[in-house]
Amino acid sequence: MKKRRPAVTLKDIAAKTGYSVNTVSRALRDKDDIAAPTREMIQKTAQEMGHVSNTLAASLRLGYTNTIAVILGDISNPHFSIMMKEIEGYAWKAGYTSILFNTNENEELELAAIQSALNKNVDGIIICPAQKTPDNLTYLKESGVPFVLIGRRDEAYSYVVCNDELGGYQATKELLSAGHRDILLLHGATYISSARERLEGYCRAFREAGVPVNERLIRQVPVVSDGCEAVLRDLENEGQEYTAIFAFSDMLAWEAWCCLLKRGKMVPKDCSIIGFDHIESRLKLPLGLTSVSSYKGRMSAMAAQILVEQIQGSAEIRQAVIDTAIAAGGTVRNRNEYN
Amino acid sequence: MKKRRPAVTLKDIAAKTGYSVNTVSRALRDKDDIAAPTREMIQKTAQEMGHVSNTLAASLRLGYTNTIAVILGDISNPHFSIMMKEIEGYAWKAGYTSILFNTNENEELELAAIQSALNKNVDGIIICPAQKTPDNLTYLKESGVPFVLIGRRDEAYSYVVCNDELGGYQATKELLSAGHRDILLLHGATYISSARERLEGYCRAFREAGVPVNERLIRQVPVVSDGCEAVLRDLENEGQEYTAIFAFSDMLAWEAWCCLLKRGKMVPKDCSIIGFDHIESRLKLPLGLTSVSSYKGRMSAMAAQILVEQIQGSAEIRQAVIDTAIAAGGTVRNRNEYN
Repeated sequence: MKKRRPAVTLKDIAAKTGYSVNTVSRALRDKDDIAAPTREMIQKTAQEMGHVSNTLAASLRLGYTNTIAVILGDISNPHFSIMMKEIEGYAWKAGYTSILFNTNENEELELAAIQSALNKNVDGIIICPAQKTPDNLTYLKESGVPFVLIGRRDEAYSYVVCNDELGGYQATKELLSAGHRDILLLHGATYISSARERLEGYCRAFREAGVPVNERLIRQVPVVSDGCEAVLRDLENEGQEYTAIFAFSDMLAWEAWCCLLKRGKMVPKDCSIIGFDHIESRLKLPLGLTSVSSYKGRMSAMAAQILVEQIQGSAEIRQAVIDTAIAAGGTVRNRNEYN
Repeated sequence: MKKRRPAVTLKDIAAKTGYSVNTVSRALRDKDDIAAPTREMIQKTAQEMGHVSNTLAASLRLGYTNTIAVILGDISNPHFSIMMKEIEGYAWKAGYTSILFNTNENEELELAAIQSALNKNVDGIIICPAQKTPDNLTYLKESGVPFVLIGRRDEAYSYVVCNDELGGYQATKELLSAGHRDILLLHGATYISSARERLEGYCRAFREAGVPVNERLIRQVPVVSDGCEAVLRDLENEGQEYTAIFAFSDMLAWEAWCCLLKRGKMVPKDCSIIGFDHIESRLKLPLGLTSVSSYKGRMSAMAAQILVEQIQGSAEIRQAVIDTAIAAGGTVRNRNEYN
């Protein structure tokens, strides 16, 4: 942990200069209701005393703020909040403060977040991009500020992702091996690289098993919550049966599980479920959801490390893909048990 | 949603000035490897073109950054990440960008977060204080920057909390009414106002029911995870029986539930559980945990609103207490069913 000197308070500066705490505070924040000579004297004294509140001005002089921005799609998803915590811990050890922006997977908010981060003169950015269009990343690239993608990739930039194709393959193979044939895929929009690649893995597993894919069981659900119920209702109306679900995220898997419970269906007795992200590795939940582990901790540390190297001058594009693994819980039932 | 003008890119400025994107970027970030006259010309052109990346300098001139800081104890706890998302949404509508700091409930990290936020010249701060000592809030107070506490209170400052005493009372009464007498309280450190007040509510419910409190069933668990197992093991070694648990947070309730499952105990058949925070109101989880609702959404919106008023000049100390309610799930079993 970075060692910090004991804080010089505004009170200390007020005592030294003879002004009130309020005047000192306003002078240090360069408010123009404090006369310029007074302001300068107070600022100079504060600086001599080692007051910390000068980094904003200092960053204009030196060009570094020791701050990185983390721009994520939905901080209320534990997958993202765990990654945020990991990134922050790593960055802190490397001497950086992290600030978070939440985009709700919305392009306009994402652009605002990028602009805001640049305006705060951050030294670098870790971003899980919304990816609906490439424009925001192009804009970010043009800023000249180092950045690393996390969780989703674009071959033009540095990134750290898990092997999403492999993850999709492993989950689907696990369900096929347990005798399931009608496997509902609840997946994200295909402009998201991870959703697209997990779908590829899903298809590869079917191909290898020599089982035809039922396209009607491949369903897109909005990544930011609440579309599951509509999908399951549509399937009922269409008379589509399924005995297993592979969900794009644990969060979506939980939602699907809730929808099944509402229908009086038990997991895994009536339906098996596999999620993605293995959130139970970090958040103790009495669920035992079988899930694809994407090694969030390792991904976060690598992204932070690559970013720090780039801030320190490396111009190399670095692209890391971490293999996934199935974390077995109790939500997959072997179909053979039914016979 | 705030309307933003279309972004002027570095490329646009490069085309206009005849310099490379890299030179423009470095000039705008005031790097001193760009000659001063060139820097000034590029900065002036960028300003004329309406380039956004001038707010850092502008904030030094004007004293406002349209940014608030949110300082929380553990962003990987969905309770906090949901509040973060709510605060951010409200602040965004009011014209503010939010930046997050995570303290891990650690005083040193909290001080660093406060200093870092002040150094970034934020207009105001929402903080869930670690509260081990009052020093960090005293330091923050002296900065002169407006701030509002959320979730925990100190009578010297503005705050928004839920009625923790009432919440503790309601949960305990619910369990007493269901016939439970040996109710394990898994609570936080008593220097945390919310933990202290929930304990008071727990004791009031026992008092009103004319049932003596068993002090050995009141156990402190670290707020940041993983102390549950040790507590349950200690109780076993001491031969302390209990038929119900009231946990300081849903996160702690989940952890306790996992510990019970590990012992082959079923919820609520073998043990009832009530949590606090009602996370299932925002995060769909197939658990059905009975929990005390603290109205996170309302708390977050009120805290943001009070902060904005203070940034705009209100000097009034505002203190809001929102009444709690039991959100019934399926984790409380009536003891009479056993007879």
